[in-house]
This record gives sequence, C-alpha cells and structure tokens, in this order.
Amino acid sequence: MQDVDPAWLPDGASRPIGTRRTLIRGTGPLVDTVRGEVEKACRRFGGAVVQDDPDLVLELTGDDGSEAFTYGRRDSRTTVTASGGAGLLYGLFHVVRLGESAFLGEAEREEHRPELALRMLDHWDNVAVHPVMGQVERGYSGGSLFWEDGRARGDLDRVRAYGRLLAACGINAVAVNNVNVHAAEARLLTDRLREVADIAGALRPYGIRTHLSVTFAAPVVLGGLETADPLDAGVREWWAEAVARVYSEIPDFGGFVVKADSEGQPGPFAYGRSHADGANMLAAALAPHGGTVHWRAFVYNHRQDWRDRSTDRARAAYDHFVPLDGEFADNAVLQVKHGPMDFQVREPVSPLIGAMPGTRLAVELQVTQEYTGQQRHVCWLGPMWSEVLRFGIAGETPVGALARGGLVAVSNVGDDPFWTGHPLAQANLYTFGRLAWEPGADPHRVLDEWIRLTFGDGPAAGVRAVLTGSWRTYEKYTAPLGVGFMVQPGHHYGPSVDGYEYSPWGTYHFADRDGVGVDRSVASGTGYAGQYAKPWDEVYESPDSCPDELLLFFHHVSYGHLLKSGKTVIQHIYDTHFEGVEEVAAAAEVWASLVDLVEPARHARVTERFVEQLRSAREWRDQVNSYFFRKSGVPDERGRTLY
Amino acid sequence: MQDVDPAWLPDGASRPIGTRRTLIRGTGPLVDTVRGEVEKACRRFGGAVVQDDPDLVLELTGDDGSEAFTYGRRDSRTTVTASGGAGLLYGLFHVVRLGESAFLGEAEREEHRPELALRMLDHWDNVAVHPVMGQVERGYSGGSLFWEDGRARGDLDRVRAYGRLLAACGINAVAVNNVNVHAAEARLLTDRLREVADIAGALRPYGIRTHLSVTFAAPVVLGGLETADPLDAGVREWWAEAVARVYSEIPDFGGFVVKADSEGQPGPFAYGRSHADGANMLAAALAPHGGTVHWRAFVYNHRQDWRDRSTDRARAAYDHFVPLDGEFADNAVLQVKHGPMDFQVREPVSPLIGAMPGTRLAVELQVTQEYTGQQRHVCWLGPMWSEVLRFGIAGETPVGALARGGLVAVSNVGDDPFWTGHPLAQANLYTFGRLAWEPGADPHRVLDEWIRLTFGDGPAAGVRAVLTGSWRTYEKYTAPLGVGFMVQPGHHYGPSVDGYEYSPWGTYHFADRDGVGVDRSVASGTGYAGQYAKPWDEVYESPDSCPDELLLFFHHVSYGHLLKSGKTVIQHIYDTHFEGVEEVAAAAEVWASLVDLVEPARHARVTERFVEQLRSAREWRDQVNSYFFRKSGVPDERGRTLY
Repeated sequence: MQDVDPAWLPDGASRPIGTRRTLIRGTGPLVDTVRGEVEKACRRFGGAVVQDDPDLVLELTGDDGSEAFTYGRRDSRTTVTASGGAGLLYGLFHVVRLGESAFLGEAEREEHRPELALRMLDHWDNVAVHPVMGQVERGYSGGSLFWEDGRARGDLDRVRAYGRLLAACGINAVAVNNVNVHAAEARLLTDRLREVADIAGALRPYGIRTHLSVTFAAPVVLGGLETADPLDAGVREWWAEAVARVYSEIPDFGGFVVKADSEGQPGPFAYGRSHADGANMLAAALAPHGGTVHWRAFVYNHRQDWRDRSTDRARAAYDHFVPLDGEFADNAVLQVKHGPMDFQVREPVSPLIGAMPGTRLAVELQVTQEYTGQQRHVCWLGPMWSEVLRFGIAGETPVGALARGGLVAVSNVGDDPFWTGHPLAQANLYTFGRLAWEPGADPHRVLDEWIRLTFGDGPAAGVRAVLTGSWRTYEKYTAPLGVGFMVQPGHHYGPSVDGYEYSPWGTYHFADRDGVGVDRSVASGTGYAGQYAKPWDEVYESPDSCPDELLLFFHHVSYGHLLKSGKTVIQHIYDTHFEGVEEVAAAAEVWASLVDLVEPARHARVTERFVEQLRSAREWRDQVNSYFFRKSGVPDERGRTLY
Repeated sequence: MQDVDPAWLPDGASRPIGTRRTLIRGTGPLVDTVRGEVEKACRRFGGAVVQDDPDLVLELTGDDGSEAFTYGRRDSRTTVTASGGAGLLYGLFHVVRLGESAFLGEAEREEHRPELALRMLDHWDNVAVHPVMGQVERGYSGGSLFWEDGRARGDLDRVRAYGRLLAACGINAVAVNNVNVHAAEARLLTDRLREVADIAGALRPYGIRTHLSVTFAAPVVLGGLETADPLDAGVREWWAEAVARVYSEIPDFGGFVVKADSEGQPGPFAYGRSHADGANMLAAALAPHGGTVHWRAFVYNHRQDWRDRSTDRARAAYDHFVPLDGEFADNAVLQVKHGPMDFQVREPVSPLIGAMPGTRLAVELQVTQEYTGQQRHVCWLGPMWSEVLRFGIAGETPVGALARGGLVAVSNVGDDPFWTGHPLAQANLYTFGRLAWEPGADPHRVLDEWIRLTFGDGPAAGVRAVLTGSWRTYEKYTAPLGVGFMVQPGHHYGPSVDGYEYSPWGTYHFADRDGVGVDRSVASGTGYAGQYAKPWDEVYESPDSCPDELLLFFHHVSYGHLLKSGKTVIQHIYDTHFEGVEEVAAAAEVWASLVDLVEPARHARVTERFVEQLRSAREWRDQVNSYFFRKSGVPDERGRTLY
C-alpha cells in the first residue's frame, strides 16, 4: 500500500490502549480484528494483551449480531462488553476516541447502541472509466479504491484500511459501484461477482456488509431475456437465481441499490409497472437470504421544457412515491435525497420524509462535495446534515422516520493519499458516520472529536475556526437564499448563474429585471409548499413566514423585497457575497498560522486548496453580484465594485 | 472504399465527355490523371480516347508548373491547352462543369488562371483521438479521412477520391493535421513522416501539395534540445535537418502550418522573440526546398479577466502583427482569420488585412461550421465569404492583399458517407474552392453550378431556395447584430446567451437591463474601430454610421436605440428570431417537396437534419428572446410569446 494519510486513526490515537494491559475475551472474526488492533497498538507502544490484571477488558458475551456495547470504568479497570462482534469492535473504537480519559477516574456503565441500523456509504465508482464521468462519478479524490481501468484493483490493503476507518466512525455498509450502472458494472452481478466477493472479504472484518448497484434491465442485458418486467415470472426467476449465486459467494451480502427510471436509467415504467412493483420484485429475490433492496426515490423528468413553469422537479419524488406508501416489501428501503432537488448548499427537507409512515425510508446525503466545492473548497457539512436530521416534520423528526431505514451517503473517498483530496474533507466523512450512529448528536462536538483524533490538541482551535462555519461561508458566496443551481453545467464546479436556466433539468431561478426566485406556493405557484405537513405548509406558503434562507426556493420576489434580516434581497446578495470571500480569506490566514502545528504534507495540501478556493470564491462573488447588478440596476449601498 | 456520396462528381457529370471522342496530348503524372478520368468516363458512356477526329482535345504544351489553361471551341471541336499538368487537369474539370454546353456552338479561346496561387484546406484532424476534441477538432462529419485511433488509415482510396473532388473545385493544398499539435501528431514530422508521405502520394495526382502542422516546440519535444529559441543555432540546424528529411520523402511538400503562442500552444514569446523571428526561422529551413511556412495570426490573451473592459480580443491580431510588417521572409505567409474574433456568423473584416502591405497574407475561412450550425443546420456561407473578399479596405480588396498569400479554410470533411455530415454542407466546400480560384465570383453563380453538378436540373430551384438565404436565416435566429458568442461553452452548439459572458475568452456582450453591445469606438471604447483605414474607422466609430448588422460589435446601445431599419434594437431581436424560425420551417417544407427529385438516402439525411435544425432554431429563438425580455422588460410589439 502506498503511503497514505492516517486520517482519524494516527498512531498516536492507539497510544492510550497500546501502553496498557488488555484482556480480550471471546472468539470470532471480529474479535480477531479487535485483538489485531490491540496487539498492533501494544507492539508500537509497549503494552500487552494479557490474561490477568488488565487495565482494559474487551469482552464478547454472545453471538447475537448486535452492534451495541456497554462501556464503564471501575476500580481502575475499563470494561467494554458486547453481545455481538461488531459491538465489541465499536466499543474498542469508543475507547480510542476517549483516549487517555478512558483510563482515568470512574465511569458508570452505559450502553451505546446505534440509533439507525443501516449506516451506509454509496460509492459512485465506475469499473470502466466513463468517457464523461471518469473512474468515479462526482469523485474529487483521485481514482477508485475498488476499481481501476475496467478491473478490480489487485491490492486490497487500501480497502482494508478504508474499512478500518469506517468502522472507527460507525459505518456498517458500503455499496461498491455507481448507481448509474454501465455495461462493465452490470456484470459485477454475474460473471464478475468474484471481484465483489473479494472486496466483501476485505470489508467483513470491520463489520461492513457489501452492497451492489444493479441495473433494472439486468435480465435483458445480462440474462438475454426479452423483458425486465417485474411481474414476469421468467424475470423473477432470473433475479432469484442471480441473487442465490451472489449469496453463495458472499453469505453476508447486504443487497442491491437501484436507480430506476431516473436520468436515463431503465425502470419499471417501461413495462407499465409501479416502482413498488419494481422494488418488491427485487426484495422478493433478496428476502430468503436476508438482503435488502435500496430503491432510490430520485425520479423526475430530466427532459423538462424550461418554458413550462407548471412542472416542478421539486414535487417529483413526493408525487411519484407517496401514493405507493404501504406497498413496499419489508426488506425494501426507499432511499430519499435529503432535499427535493439535488444536494444543493441549501434546500428544504424533502416533504416525502414523514409522509410515508408505511414505508422504510433511508435519507441520502452527499458527502462527496459535488455542489459544495468539490473538495477544493473547505465546506464542512455537519451543521447542514444536522439541521436535516433534527427537522420536525409531520410530528416526527427524520430520525424517527429513518429508524427502520437508515442513513446513506455518497462517499467522498478515492485513492488520493489523503483519502478525500482535501484533507479537511475527511471531517465530512467522519461526521457522517457519527451522525448516522447518533443523528441527534451535536455536530460541533463530533467535529471536535475528529479534530482531536486527527490533529491532536495543538492546532485544534485553529482547525475548528477554519471548519466550523465553512458551510455557511460557502453558502454566502454561492447561490443565494436557497435558489440553488448557479453552477457550471456538467461538471458543476464554479459559477454560471444562467448555466441551468434554459436547460431541460428543471433547475431554474427565473431572474428577470424585477426579481428572482421560484414560486412554489399553493396559491400562485407550483403547489410544492402544499406537500408539507403542518405547520410547514403554512410557513413556506407565504414569503412573510418563509425563512430567509429558503425564500427564493419558495417564492419569486422583487429585488427590493425586505428580508427578516431587514435587508433587501439585492443588498443581501451583495453583502453575503462580499462577506463570503472575506471569510475564506480569513480562514486561509488562520490555516497559514498553523504551519508549525500541522504535519507538513497535510498543511501544504490544504494551503494549495485555499489558493483555489479563494480564487473561485472571488469568481463566484463577482459573477453573482455582476449578474444581479446588471439585471436589477441597483447599486451596492456600500459602493463596492460591481462589474 | 465504402459506398460514398459522389458529391459534385456524380456519374452523370462525366457523361458529356464520356460519350465523345477525346484526344489527349502530352505526358506526365497529371496527364495520366486526366487520361484516367476520360477513359473511365468513356468506359461508362461509350466514348473513346482517340488519335484523330476528336470532339475534345486536351493538350499539355509544356512543363512550367502553371495552373492556367485556355479553353475554346471551333469547328465542332472543343480544345483545352495548358502549359502545366495542373492546368490541364483544371481544364478538364472546366469541361465537366460546362457539361453538354461544352460541345455546343462556338467559344472564343479564353485563358483561365487562378487569381490566388494558394488555395488551401487545413484539416484539424488529430492522429490520436483527443479526449475532449475527438478525432477531428470541430469536425462534424465523422472521423478523419487520414487518421484513425492513433494510426494512419491503411486504405487511401478515400483520400484519392477526396483529392479528385478538391481538384474539381480548384483546391491545390491540404494540411493533414490539426494546428493544435499534440504528442502523436508532433511525430508526423520525424519518425512518422512515412504516413504523411503516403497521403501526399495519394493527393499528388490531383495537383495537391501536402502540408503539415508542426509544433513550435518540436526541437524540444522531438529533438531533445533544451530550447526552441528561433535564434539558437542548434534549433535552426535541427529544423533544417528535419525539413531536409521531409523533402527527401516528399519532394513537393508544401510546408508548415504553425499555431504559436495561441491558446496554449508554444511559441517564440517564451524566448523573448518576435513572431517574425519564429516564422522566419522556419521559413529559412523551408526556403532551400521551395516550401512555405503558414504562420497563424490567431494570437490573443485567452486568459483574460472578464472584469477588465479595456482589453479587447478583437484588437489582438492587429496589435501583435502590424508592427512586424516587412519583417517576414518571402516564403512566410501570415494566415489571418477573416474576422477579428473567431468565425462568428457575423464579424467585420479583420483590419489587419490591408494593413500589412509588406507581408504575404492568407485569409483563413472556416468551412467547418463550428459556430454556424455544425452541419446540423443548413448554412451556406458563400455570401459571407464573398462579402469578406469583396470588402474594400485601405484602398484595396482583401483579394489584392491575398494575391501573394492565398485563401485557406478549415475543412468540413470527414469519413461520413456524405463527406460533410449534412449533404448540403458540400456546397460550402465547393464554394470555397471556387472562390479561392476566383474571389470576385458571384457566389450565387457558384451555388447554381454546384447544384446543377450535384443534383441535376430537376430539384435545382428547390435546392437553391433552401440554400441561398440560409446564412442570413441562421444569423437571424442566433446572436444578433454582430454581437457574437452566445453559444454553449466548449462544444459551441446551441444557445447560451451568457455562456461566455464571465469567461476568460474575451468574448462578451455586456448585456444589462438597459442595453447591450461592446463599445469598440476610439472615443469611449477599446479603440478597435481605429485600427481600420479610412473610411471604415469613421464608419464604425459612430453608432449613427455603423451598419446595423455590426452595431453591437462596435457599440453598446440601449434596447430602445433606433436602427437604420427603423426598428428598435429590442424589437429587431424579437422580429429576427421569430422570422429565422419561420424561414427554417419554410425551407424544411421546400426540402420535403423535393422528395421525388432527390436521391432517397440524401433526401432522408437532409430531412433528418432539418428536424434538428428546427428544434435548435426554436431553442435559439426562445432563449435569446427570453433573455432579452427578462433583462429589458420590453414586451414584443406584436404580442408573441416570450418566456
């Protein structure tokens, strides 16, 4: 394995355990993993795995598959017990996170148990390099950990190291290929299954189940059948046999991820069948083996006519799926993007969450920073995700709705030596894992945890200052007030205010000389606001009650419209864009001041990224401000330069 | 050779000769070509090559390399004489063009002589498929005739057929690779020279000399030298040796085409040398062998800051090159794009033409329709080119300035069965050749000639109706009033009004809520208008005298500005865009009416292209109109729908 960044598991993180005497009780593959971790730490720091007089006891008491563990400390002895191997492993990493404090004082026994059973990363990795999308679709961290130029990587050490990092933040499921399933990738289900099994073998010791994205058209493109109709007996039989073969190679296989009838992918609509029909057919094939189908709700018309203001992409997932509530099988999970559009820096929470009580839902976040700076910009997304997870909708939070489904995110990891391109983007991956374990956690506490593990205490205050407000900073210098999509078409990096304005993608801002924004009210707009349960339908319906940060998502208002902040919309645009750039410059200065406190290669990489972030932020500022100045004719109150 | 369209040399075109008795006098390779043409026609139609009692005499009287011929008819005998082989070949094709009328009545002997010695096509063909630009940069006709996936095509039959078509419209030079010279292409100069020699061998029988685009950095990238400094003795020696090797393989090699210090290509600026230094160094290497260097004047700052309104890309060629007038070697030709920007549907004539009396100039046109519909739209460019060639500047027409340089065009041909993707785009290639021969020719006469040769008389009126106004139609529904560049970035197809507005490419329209256009006056703008000789500097300086069709190229005016047509700018935009679409629809109907008069495959291909053209024209109309309606707030006088 090439020399890679240790991320949140640097040598030093294992010192507290590695200097101590640890007793390990129990057997099984995950206990072996735990023992290996402890032995390695002891070799490094002089401690030992012992049979008596331990400082630390790690004990597996059963074999029930539980991920929970109990932790406590009494009489100078720290004890972790678990009734399942994964629980013991999570308990070990809990001790790692606690560091020296795990071996100080006393601690009441307390149980730790993940609130969500499924904590999953989806890799949009292609096996064959896609002519447009490359090796990793929306990947900003080099190549894929799994695939290279059409083949599986021979060396799985990096995959094992990845699994270890994921276990240390609580992730327990990985889908190893892109939801857009092209020709080479389709065959992972059949004649290339061995390559998936090898990856599953590398991830299994870390409590991670492997999933596969499959094409709905597999019976046709792989099986040579004439149809992929989910109600066709031959099709169902083909899938049953395909699934049986998968489980014969990968007994703990997690299941399928499916993007169907979405952006050109095939799906049940071609056969006049519903998405419940499609998902349940795959669920039926997986059920005998304990597998799950993740069925994505990202279904909308991507060939929309921009002239048609009555069609609203934001409505699509709700309109398609809410009528199907109660029809999905028990082992089918409907995977819903957190917002109604597509991972913009600011969106409302999807109204579908909370509107399907009879369906297992998973929320999909995007750790890879497609629209949030592509890992060239610092943009720690913890606060955004936390807002989503804590949002109250239909009498419950998304967390409640997700208890039976889970939390899923698109991974931001590649074969880059820093894993995530931008070293500080590791914080997003870590935060996702920890929020998936405990969705109500304070994200800033998670951030501090990540900083201390990754950097130690020296630069902690500086790193925190750089990261803590970075999402709001990014929001300030990009698309304003929730309006979204002002990025360059295709690659989605950098500003293009009208880039999607006349496109078929359903992503418009409707700016004219008088105002800007999308009227999604029931009274005069697309009616999207009416998809929300109370009180949000009413809150969003009127520009008077709609929160400022979502105003242009829900309403078309004049440039002179007064925000709750007391500023006009146009002055808000100017002010936030100037502020955003100033905040980036300030963050870059803070980072520069850490030069003696941060490992040199890591410091240099971040410094280099800040140069680009600052250039890009200025470009965003000037293009957005000039665009709205040219349209509105309103000068900046403070007389700053507009072009 | 696959089954390809005969273009303007269908079987029927050789019938008048093929049914007659032809006497051929003289020897040499081009006489062999002439004899082969006549014999083939006779085999098809029953005539004969004879020694006595001929209907047609084709006689080579010398070997002076002349391209001229004399044509006459007396006593029922048609006679062509020439003192050079190429002249005899051109004389033969003159007879082909005349058809049956060449064998009727009497005709005074008259001499035909090309007005421009160099009539050249530049192929922007890549040897290796470029990851972004593909096999042919800005190619819309399939692959390359010369190269395929990194290799020369083995079969040269298609190249020979191409040479024959070119000879039949008067072209005598071809550059076989892209002016952007990448790694594989660079080696055509050295170890892959044999591949160029093979192509030259296929084109030579048609009087066509082969040219090569080379990289200025060749001494470094191919020769391993540490510099490409044009004044370095080692560099000059390296080029001299490279050129000598070329001529040992290709004795009639035409010379080099060079894009230097342009859009990232290397050049003399890197060594603090002038472009005259650079060109003359290559000229010196070529001179002993009779070769020419074509040095492109397309030098500008493509990393411009859009915020900076004082920099004007339109000024660049003049500013760079006029100070060098008189410094270029006799066998160096400065190759100037016809307009100051980049082949837009409407540009003024480059002020550089006429401003360099001490320099051999060639004007570069673009037959490939990069910005004019990419061979999905009908857009016959003859009238535009003719306007350029007949434009009076500095006391002479461009034709005068070009007499020692020539006319060059970027080819629109590929391995498509119709040669040019859109069958009607053949008219552009043919028209270019004929205008290069006779720049003052009426382009509509040339069009009729092409129609009669290609289609015969049946559908002629319909084809003429489709083509004759197609350039102005295209102009109507795309960027208005000379403003240019409202295309989608990168591929340049379809509308994106702001697509280049905030880019580094120097291509802006500066539209705001009050008006649009670029102020290039001396009084208040970039001063570009002052680069023109009288009277054009004064004509362009004021919006009152500036022609409507170039108004926004030279001036920023309000939407209410009254054009000479009596319309406001904004109403002109609306009207022309509605008209343009209507004209496309009408042309499509005319074409449909020709279904029984046009060869079915050709008719079907054009019909298919019209579907796309109409869709695209509507998209242009609605995006441009909506853009300006949203900015100006001015409704259409006629109440038509604006979005």
